Amino acid sequence: MEYRIEKDTMGEVKVPSNKYWGAQTERSRNNFKIGPAASMPLDIVYGFAYLKKAAAFTNHELGVLTVEKRDLIAEVCDEILQGKHDDQFPLVIWQTGSGTQSNMNVNEVIANRAQELAGKKIGEGEKTIQPNDDVNKSQSSNDTFPTGMHIAAYKKIVETTIPGVTQLRNTLDKKAKEFAKVVKIGRTHLMDATPLTLGQEISGYVSQLDHGLRALNHTLDHLSEMALGGTAVGTGLNTPEGYDVLVAEYIAKFTGLPFKTAENKFEALASHDAIVESHGALKQLAVALNKIANDIRMMASGPRSGIGEIIIPANEPGSSIMPGKVNPTQCEALTMVCAQVMGNDVAISVGGTQGHYELNVFKPMMAANILQSAQLLGDACISFDENCAVGIEPNYKVIEQLLNNSLMLVTALNTKIGYYKAAEIANTAHKNGTTLKVEAINLGYVTAEEYEAWVKPEDMVGTIKS
Amino acid sequence: MEYRIEKDTMGEVKVPSNKYWGAQTERSRNNFKIGPAASMPLDIVYGFAYLKKAAAFTNHELGVLTVEKRDLIAEVCDEILQGKHDDQFPLVIWQTGSGTQSNMNVNEVIANRAQELAGKKIGEGEKTIQPNDDVNKSQSSNDTFPTGMHIAAYKKIVETTIPGVTQLRNTLDKKAKEFAKVVKIGRTHLMDATPLTLGQEISGYVSQLDHGLRALNHTLDHLSEMALGGTAVGTGLNTPEGYDVLVAEYIAKFTGLPFKTAENKFEALASHDAIVESHGALKQLAVALNKIANDIRMMASGPRSGIGEIIIPANEPGSSIMPGKVNPTQCEALTMVCAQVMGNDVAISVGGTQGHYELNVFKPMMAANILQSAQLLGDACISFDENCAVGIEPNYKVIEQLLNNSLMLVTALNTKIGYYKAAEIANTAHKNGTTLKVEAINLGYVTAEEYEAWVKPEDMVGTIKS
Amino acid sequence: MEYRIEKDTMGEVKVPSNKYWGAQTERSRNNFKIGPAASMPLDIVYGFAYLKKAAAFTNHELGVLTVEKRDLIAEVCDEILQGKHDDQFPLVIWQTGSGTQSNMNVNEVIANRAQELAGKKIGEGEKTIQPNDDVNKSQSSNDTFPTGMHIAAYKKIVETTIPGVTQLRNTLDKKAKEFAKVVKIGRTHLMDATPLTLGQEISGYVSQLDHGLRALNHTLDHLSEMALGGTAVGTGLNTPEGYDVLVAEYIAKFTGLPFKTAENKFEALASHDAIVESHGALKQLAVALNKIANDIRMMASGPRSGIGEIIIPANEPGSSIMPGKVNPTQCEALTMVCAQVMGNDVAISVGGTQGHYELNVFKPMMAANILQSAQLLGDACISFDENCAVGIEPNYKVIEQLLNNSLMLVTALNTKIGYYKAAEIANTAHKNGTTLKVEAINLGYVTAEEYEAWVKPEDMVGTIKS
Amino acid sequence: MEYRIEKDTMGEVKVPSNKYWGAQTERSRNNFKIGPAASMPLDIVYGFAYLKKAAAFTNHELGVLTVEKRDLIAEVCDEILQGKHDDQFPLVIWQTGSGTQSNMNVNEVIANRAQELAGKKIGEGEKTIQPNDDVNKSQSSNDTFPTGMHIAAYKKIVETTIPGVTQLRNTLDKKAKEFAKVVKIGRTHLMDATPLTLGQEISGYVSQLDHGLRALNHTLDHLSEMALGGTAVGTGLNTPEGYDVLVAEYIAKFTGLPFKTAENKFEALASHDAIVESHGALKQLAVALNKIANDIRMMASGPRSGIGEIIIPANEPGSSIMPGKVNPTQCEALTMVCAQVMGNDVAISVGGTQGHYELNVFKPMMAANILQSAQLLGDACISFDENCAVGIEPNYKVIEQLLNNSLMLVTALNTKIGYYKAAEIANTAHKNGTTLKVEAINLGYVTAEEYEAWVKPEDMVGTIKS
Repeated sequence: MEYRIEKDTMGEVKVPSNKYWGAQTERSRNNFKIGPAASMPLDIVYGFAYLKKAAAFTNHELGVLTVEKRDLIAEVCDEILQGKHDDQFPLVIWQTGSGTQSNMNVNEVIANRAQELAGKKIGEGEKTIQPNDDVNKSQSSNDTFPTGMHIAAYKKIVETTIPGVTQLRNTLDKKAKEFAKVVKIGRTHLMDATPLTLGQEISGYVSQLDHGLRALNHTLDHLSEMALGGTAVGTGLNTPEGYDVLVAEYIAKFTGLPFKTAENKFEALASHDAIVESHGALKQLAVALNKIANDIRMMASGPRSGIGEIIIPANEPGSSIMPGKVNPTQCEALTMVCAQVMGNDVAISVGGTQGHYELNVFKPMMAANILQSAQLLGDACISFDENCAVGIEPNYKVIEQLLNNSLMLVTALNTKIGYYKAAEIANTAHKNGTTLKVEAINLGYVTAEEYEAWVKPEDMVGTIKS
Repeated sequence: MEYRIEKDTMGEVKVPSNKYWGAQTERSRNNFKIGPAASMPLDIVYGFAYLKKAAAFTNHELGVLTVEKRDLIAEVCDEILQGKHDDQFPLVIWQTGSGTQSNMNVNEVIANRAQELAGKKIGEGEKTIQPNDDVNKSQSSNDTFPTGMHIAAYKKIVETTIPGVTQLRNTLDKKAKEFAKVVKIGRTHLMDATPLTLGQEISGYVSQLDHGLRALNHTLDHLSEMALGGTAVGTGLNTPEGYDVLVAEYIAKFTGLPFKTAENKFEALASHDAIVESHGALKQLAVALNKIANDIRMMASGPRSGIGEIIIPANEPGSSIMPGKVNPTQCEALTMVCAQVMGNDVAISVGGTQGHYELNVFKPMMAANILQSAQLLGDACISFDENCAVGIEPNYKVIEQLLNNSLMLVTALNTKIGYYKAAEIANTAHKNGTTLKVEAINLGYVTAEEYEAWVKPEDMVGTIKS
Repeated sequence: MEYRIEKDTMGEVKVPSNKYWGAQTERSRNNFKIGPAASMPLDIVYGFAYLKKAAAFTNHELGVLTVEKRDLIAEVCDEILQGKHDDQFPLVIWQTGSGTQSNMNVNEVIANRAQELAGKKIGEGEKTIQPNDDVNKSQSSNDTFPTGMHIAAYKKIVETTIPGVTQLRNTLDKKAKEFAKVVKIGRTHLMDATPLTLGQEISGYVSQLDHGLRALNHTLDHLSEMALGGTAVGTGLNTPEGYDVLVAEYIAKFTGLPFKTAENKFEALASHDAIVESHGALKQLAVALNKIANDIRMMASGPRSGIGEIIIPANEPGSSIMPGKVNPTQCEALTMVCAQVMGNDVAISVGGTQGHYELNVFKPMMAANILQSAQLLGDACISFDENCAVGIEPNYKVIEQLLNNSLMLVTALNTKIGYYKAAEIANTAHKNGTTLKVEAINLGYVTAEEYEAWVKPEDMVGTIKS
Repeated sequence: MEYRIEKDTMGEVKVPSNKYWGAQTERSRNNFKIGPAASMPLDIVYGFAYLKKAAAFTNHELGVLTVEKRDLIAEVCDEILQGKHDDQFPLVIWQTGSGTQSNMNVNEVIANRAQELAGKKIGEGEKTIQPNDDVNKSQSSNDTFPTGMHIAAYKKIVETTIPGVTQLRNTLDKKAKEFAKVVKIGRTHLMDATPLTLGQEISGYVSQLDHGLRALNHTLDHLSEMALGGTAVGTGLNTPEGYDVLVAEYIAKFTGLPFKTAENKFEALASHDAIVESHGALKQLAVALNKIANDIRMMASGPRSGIGEIIIPANEPGSSIMPGKVNPTQCEALTMVCAQVMGNDVAISVGGTQGHYELNVFKPMMAANILQSAQLLGDACISFDENCAVGIEPNYKVIEQLLNNSLMLVTALNTKIGYYKAAEIANTAHKNGTTLKVEAINLGYVTAEEYEAWVKPEDMVGTIKS
């Protein structure tokens, strides 16, 4: 491989000739060989591209950067956002906890690529754009990294998580309405209980997702706060007057999202409670989705020796031998995602507790975890929706059979023949393995006609609202 | 010990004569000897007292309970809320996961105590008030327990957690303003960085708590939803028309808190995302408080060989030998609480994922954990506030010494003599173990007067807003 | 209430006259009003009683304590271990993280009670036994608290957890052997699969518990290490030669358990990886027990509309209406315990990460959590065993029905008529809702006799070893 | 892109022509678009390559596979292990929870590549090797996936984690011995305490890692159990006599690691407590490493306004302005890894609890998490060792200064002039901000010569063993 020499304040470093990055990126590559290369999420890099461009515009508008430099920086940022330089960011999550090295990676790539755009050769003459003095102007790793991770997490949540969960929620809502009158047995403690409709059951899932989405939306305000303008320790040292507010406006403009400058820059650098907060809502959604997926696979279990009340799509051969063996694979993928999100929540909380003085140095780990959770939840909901939820159908025959077999329909007789006689009927049927109707008539408490008239599951499910 | 005989549908049970509880409570005592007795939190019992009274009023108003019964039930509920029957609730958390047995415990105590209030002897004649038919009328364990736990958790949060955190927040805010101009060294990566004021540092803590309180408040709406009216599976079987809305209004009236009927009763029984959601916010506060307490103990460390920038109150002898050994014991208590809350969050999330069909049967565990977290956080904040935060004082001498020693003040010379000369000064001072001023003059880059005029930490801390 | 005056190096404190504790305990009571009073587990106090007695014997043997003092201290320790002074330990978990205040609580109680035993009045004349100089001789809070918590945790694990889990394991093993030939349908992905025996299924649970017990036993060696002898920072300052080894021998003698002096006292004070390690094994058991309890409640679900392959004891009325509604309440209690243990594991791990320099100050929290987990797991296993596992019986009729209905028995024909014809049989039966036998004969691939001869579930379950 | 047609029992699927995989892999690619492609760890694929080869040898030896087929299968497995087909495994973690689709991916790739090796074209004529009948012979996804994940996790732990942790442990042990006599101040509660040596302090870290490694080694026995031979539900249906034992022997032979057949195949499919167990030990190591890294960064903090007792290598420019700003970046990377491992532990535990009947369907998620933790811990220890630990040096000047300033050296005078006079000296020095020596002489309790003779920190550190 061919190399060129790049320098920083500690001296010279050999960098692969075909890469834009510079000395500090290369040092980090060598010093942090932990896990697979390039594990730092590209979403973070894109977040940086937005903020570097916004900073360039703000610096120019406030008179500390020339229009030429602004435009060169912005052009590279746009290229990065178009995915043209994805192979220029080789660093890992497990680097310095401030993400300084990824900030420098971005600075170095922008500076060297700008050199080319300016028609020069990298390493030739003075750098047209300096990584620190120009690209990083009015910035510090300490305020850029949290800004980049807020942009990335916010975007991921509103572009992937919320649409994914919402799509699933809408399908379930449609199913709830569609099956609003499909009366089935209810189960509490996994044991037979009074009836409800399949639509009511599913409406509970919809309500869970609605509450979860509401909770997630509540967290977005905190997440929309941009640390940028705090620089090294939150004081805004070396930023021009009005910089923090303006740069957030530019970020909002470039992303089309309602970002704003952080209320308190000291918090914004030293702690990442906004990440903890948003991930808490993701975890709540994971808890809800786990319950939903679990119910669905239990209800779809069988085909002969399970519950079998619903039928879900058969997407893959479940077995080369047994027809009808439809494994609830989407439920499995989704619940695995839920378990991962629950684990990520702990990783993020642990990182969140450990800020020291003016800086929390668990930034890359926290960022990587929230991005993973947000992506997986959104993707898994789409996958679950399209490959499972849309195809849920009641197995009417089984539903009716299980419903009519149920001993607790006897409850309907309480007001007619009294609790004790009703209980006697049920007890006898249980002991004899017969039906309520048979024993009710045998015991002489009701006639067949009365039984038919009084024991109507559809009258036991309340007013259906969904 | 003397016993009397109580009965339920499974037969007779011997119950201690001096206790109001009945057969089902006694069965649970015998069947669940897990951990210390009576671990079910009394707050849950009080939550039940509110809802039983509300149910009695609603049942009466809707024509299904006599005024005499209503008043007897209400009177016992009031006695329970006055703490008169605290020794009548011997059950443990680790019982049936629906909390049925605690519901029956309350029903039985109310019925037997009502018997006394009605001037009769327990066990004599017909029960004036039936535990199931009267006290539990229009209810099921499945909707009462989640209602009771929402009441208890909501009350605990608004009466203990929020006031406790707010009190600490206000003290810190006062300190932030008081020390707004105390310039000190900043630290990032635990390493010396550019200066900020002690007030700015503390303002970051205030901002964390403000965001945390905001997040907690966002969760209260979900927590204010009452499952009552859903009965066995959420359909509201056996409740009179309008019952759910009215009973929630009575609960709101009796508690003085904005409770309302749940949007979706199926969710309210089958999952407890509201508990997951509120506890997520408690966990966020734990994360924030851990950071704050950790910073304070690091800044107060010493007295000779630590950081020693602040002085915290000496509340207990730290040692029988060493004067000045003030251990940061309040920080320790608080961070232990934070760790517990982080653990409780996992317990609650795990429980939350495991609802099956129409019922989540991790209710008592989830309730106990959120109540513990809410209590501990509130109490620990008060304790930390009164025994530590209120007494925080800057150690001006140390602060000034550490500030002036700092090599990174050289940053202020960048704009006067250029970056390279400034760096040379700093490097030389670091190598020689001398001061910036000495080396700046030695190297001939500035005069003593210029140094004094240009290197002013107080000009490096930005506009102070707090 | 009446008070007496007690003193420490910070001055005078009013203490309730009827209590043995002194100034430092009282200060802690006032300074740490966090959660319920006296939450510090008594098991810790008993651990202290063992170690204080052992220290007195060692100090005497090594010539630094008189025989009179030794015997007085030992006598009070014995009284504490007999439970005579349980009301003398009012402190909370949420105190100083070293547990110093609980150490002093024990020292003060021993000293004042010894005063009485010596025939004097508390507060009269010189103390016969000094809390610091005598009771705490050759000790520090920093080595006593970890010693006390190791003793308490070790004892709890070997006296409660292991016997409890083992009792359940033995019952399950008995059931596995008893049901070794009860062929039933297997289920993977919750879907019908090839058969196995109920005994084989249960043997998997036994194997899980065997592995879990083995894992727990592996951790006991680390937990048996006593920090005592490290004193303030691990150096053993102020201890006589040979003290550490001898005091551990005395603890071993008094407890009858194989305690030994810690390999490295610096670790023993500054980190509590032994607690993390043992609790990790408790958590593994919780994971295993959760799986087992969950399976059992699914298999027992019904009675009509669930799986219903096994019958578990009916311990409490499940409902006042529905006979046969046996809720799997022991499964619920056990799985709630499992969730709690999983949460406690995180609390302990978080505490474990946060030692600073020579001391970890999350001791009381870590101790309380491991004691709770160990107690709850042991108790819950006994409860589950006695009230559920011992009574598990196959529901032969259902088992046979589900087994014979199963379409995957067709696998047995693969070697006789080839895979494709077998698949055709199964597919047709699935489509028509008929049996394999019917379609096999209809399609003309086998005769009724051949079918009976070839399709034998009992030949599909392999060699039964259990 | 060009495609060819592949078939499975559900019909035809278009597969990219240049790929070896078949219909079922392609279905999974389409049905599970969750997170980045190909996230299933290659280590799992390699684990499969070992077991497929072992199965082929065993099947041949037991007479159910021809030598030609055995050798073709083995040849492809060897190619896979040489990394020649890394781009043939496009599936994600978030697929079916049994990992069936990754099993089929391996089966399909082996079959199609074998077709080529046999000199035929893929899709031409009968397949020389059938994915199900030959490659998967005597196997099921249900026993291959756990086997593959045990092989992968075991190898990762013994080849990456243990060597990495051991290398760091050895460096620390060398440092402990090297600095065995460097007396420094101790700190408890972050506050000044009695002295110890830097070597003693570091010996505590070594002891933590020794205990952690021991704990990890304890778990390997469980992890060495191979599920292979259990097939679909653990009964071993469709395996030849003796298969399970022999196939494990072949795996042991091919990997050079002590694998053996699982004690109980039902456990081995239905639960993954072995993964929970091993990861518990990884988590314990994370807890230990977090403490160590945290201590080191606190001791290295400064350079002027921190603790500054040790000097760690300067690997990257900490800042473009401030010389001497060496950020403890390796500590940061390591502690981020520790937080991740703590999170992964929860994900694994949650997955572990959720086995249902004969199968746990959280396999891929559990496998991915343990592999990540094992890799990150091993790598991070090497990185931390080589870029930080090896270069730790005492800052003798600071150590001596902090030691001599310490007021708690007064403890040494207790036995000479009594506790009260000693305390008076210390109190006075604290109040006046002077030294013990000055005040000891001023108060007339000792002479300068006596002070020098009696107050010797080096005599306060006990016998140095390390």
